[in-house]
Amino acid sequence: MTPPQPYSLNSRKVAEATEEWLVKRGITKIAVAQLVHFLQKDYFPELTIDECIVNVDAVLSKREVQNAVLTGIQLDMLAEEGKLLSPLQEMIKNDEGLYGCDEILALSIVNVYGSIGFTNFGYIDKLKPGILKKLNDKSSGEVHTFLDDIIGAIAASAASRIAHRKQAEREGLTKPPLD
Amino acid sequence: MTPPQPYSLNSRKVAEATEEWLVKRGITKIAVAQLVHFLQKDYFPELTIDECIVNVDAVLSKREVQNAVLTGIQLDMLAEEGKLLSPLQEMIKNDEGLYGCDEILALSIVNVYGSIGFTNFGYIDKLKPGILKKLNDKSSGEVHTFLDDIIGAIAASAASRIAHRKQAEREGLTKPPLD
Amino acid sequence: MTPPQPYSLNSRKVAEATEEWLVKRGITKIAVAQLVHFLQKDYFPELTIDECIVNVDAVLSKREVQNAVLTGIQLDMLAEEGKLLSPLQEMIKNDEGLYGCDEILALSIVNVYGSIGFTNFGYIDKLKPGILKKLNDKSSGEVHTFLDDIIGAIAASAASRIAHRKQAEREGLTKPPLD
Amino acid sequence: MTPPQPYSLNSRKVAEATEEWLVKRGITKIAVAQLVHFLQKDYFPELTIDECIVNVDAVLSKREVQNAVLTGIQLDMLAEEGKLLSPLQEMIKNDEGLYGCDEILALSIVNVYGSIGFTNFGYIDKLKPGILKKLNDKSSGEVHTFLDDIIGAIAASAASRIAHRKQAEREGLTKPPLD
Repeated sequence: MTPPQPYSLNSRKVAEATEEWLVKRGITKIAVAQLVHFLQKDYFPELTIDECIVNVDAVLSKREVQNAVLTGIQLDMLAEEGKLLSPLQEMIKNDEGLYGCDEILALSIVNVYGSIGFTNFGYIDKLKPGILKKLNDKSSGEVHTFLDDIIGAIAASAASRIAHRKQAEREGLTKPPLD
Repeated sequence: MTPPQPYSLNSRKVAEATEEWLVKRGITKIAVAQLVHFLQKDYFPELTIDECIVNVDAVLSKREVQNAVLTGIQLDMLAEEGKLLSPLQEMIKNDEGLYGCDEILALSIVNVYGSIGFTNFGYIDKLKPGILKKLNDKSSGEVHTFLDDIIGAIAASAASRIAHRKQAEREGLTKPPLD
Repeated sequence: MTPPQPYSLNSRKVAEATEEWLVKRGITKIAVAQLVHFLQKDYFPELTIDECIVNVDAVLSKREVQNAVLTGIQLDMLAEEGKLLSPLQEMIKNDEGLYGCDEILALSIVNVYGSIGFTNFGYIDKLKPGILKKLNDKSSGEVHTFLDDIIGAIAASAASRIAHRKQAEREGLTKPPLD
Repeated sequence: MTPPQPYSLNSRKVAEATEEWLVKRGITKIAVAQLVHFLQKDYFPELTIDECIVNVDAVLSKREVQNAVLTGIQLDMLAEEGKLLSPLQEMIKNDEGLYGCDEILALSIVNVYGSIGFTNFGYIDKLKPGILKKLNDKSSGEVHTFLDDIIGAIAASAASRIAHRKQAEREGLTKPPLD
């Protein structure tokens, strides 16, 4: 008889699950990259969508970000299936205005690339361009209370990463000061 | 036939659920008050457990705190029942060291009473005195990955509230500068 | 000879200095209240400027907020007078894009009224309506690198406070769940 | 006559100033590395001081961290010279208990390496081992209100970085999931 294996984290599984869960919830990388482009195009007119995708990938490679994505999507899915306890079920299902744990998880994503991302996060979270509008559409029966904030936070973080990198390029530095 | 009622938040239900869920998960107010007393007794030797309870109640009356308590306990319970998706299930069940969403929710509690609570939160979260030790005991089969951080945060917040109030008393102010 | 008096905080002086320094830097309460009104008028069409002022006052009565206001204004003034050391002097004077300590102090203000204020803070900080536009005008020779974020944060916090209070009113609660 | 050059950030100068200001304020890298070792030695008994120095250097290479270090040290120095306006001068000079902007800047450092660092920051900030004890000694006439929290935050961040890297090593990953 094999004894139970002690728990051992497998980081690759965490990274893969993050990719898979995002796809399952209707998020493509291009859709997130378009948000990044929307945020940065006025500052860097030559910025391409491909460059935005590279930066979204970099943000998604961080464990802190993966943890928030998995936790937020899990809560959205459980609320969609009606499996949370009342009154948390109703608060998340209805994206209740005084419930702010979604913003909190989102902010933990933004923090990883530093405070200059706060503004972009709030701006995009209010305007809801592109994929954020679709996520925020309550008529579908789908619940994306956490995911819309999380996607906005990933886009804001990728925008911060680009701002740091572009400055490094401008100065001819080989290593960017923040990654 | 009655049409479905539109969603309308009932704050009293949120507050009551917070109290009930804490009791169900083995948390008494005295146990939290003892953590507060542990944190503040050296600064305010005359501080009583009853005074600590009053301050714990004040912290628990905030919606921001209630949201974090309900969300954290829900995730703990689902992990205990094995109902989360892998790998999130394993990360929360095993209180994985690189999983930090529990600390993030806890910090959102501390923030409400201001930055002077960060130190107390970290200190108590590391030392695990009193009820925190019991919550952190992995041998029971219970999962309190979120709850132990949340309880530490509530105690740290109550300690901050006491620090603000005691200063107001010392100066003879009727209204404390932070509540 | 009188021995030096031990330091003892006078909270009233901190509160008064906050009011005075804001006035000295060109901030009127009506200007901040107008930002609050801009943020909340679509949700609460009956909201008056007077009501907004009451809520701005409540935010400004918190020590955590006063600390951030005084610290931010002090740094702005020193940068304006050229009294900071290089390269911090240049970074603050020029509101350098990769310098984020202004956003950090601002976020500590928003946090006091909870995470639902993040979005409003970022939104207003990007759009720069009303007084924020004037603060952000670099041609004047004045430096408001910290102050424009701080004022945006105070307005976002007052908006959060209103959201909590209006919900309490709607439910007929006498005590709002967050203050 | 040469026209005035438009402002252009020089990241190398920011990084160099960070190193210089830390030295000028009595901070050696070994002293910070010893704090990191203190935090992590029980989890990684083979951890060397040299390894800790490498991780402290990595934390110090981030712009977000450099911004906080420069801002905090500048405020400490101005308070030491009595050049801040009252009552901010007295609050910083006396490391006033209800003044929390030092903790806020410190937390912005911890955030860059994710939420698992909060606990270590609070713990070390309370215990004040090694160099933190010296920084906290009020009898010297020196003011380190910001710096002691900042150094604790750098140590906590380096500890987080080590935790992420050690996990990556254990799993045989070439690229750590968080840097």
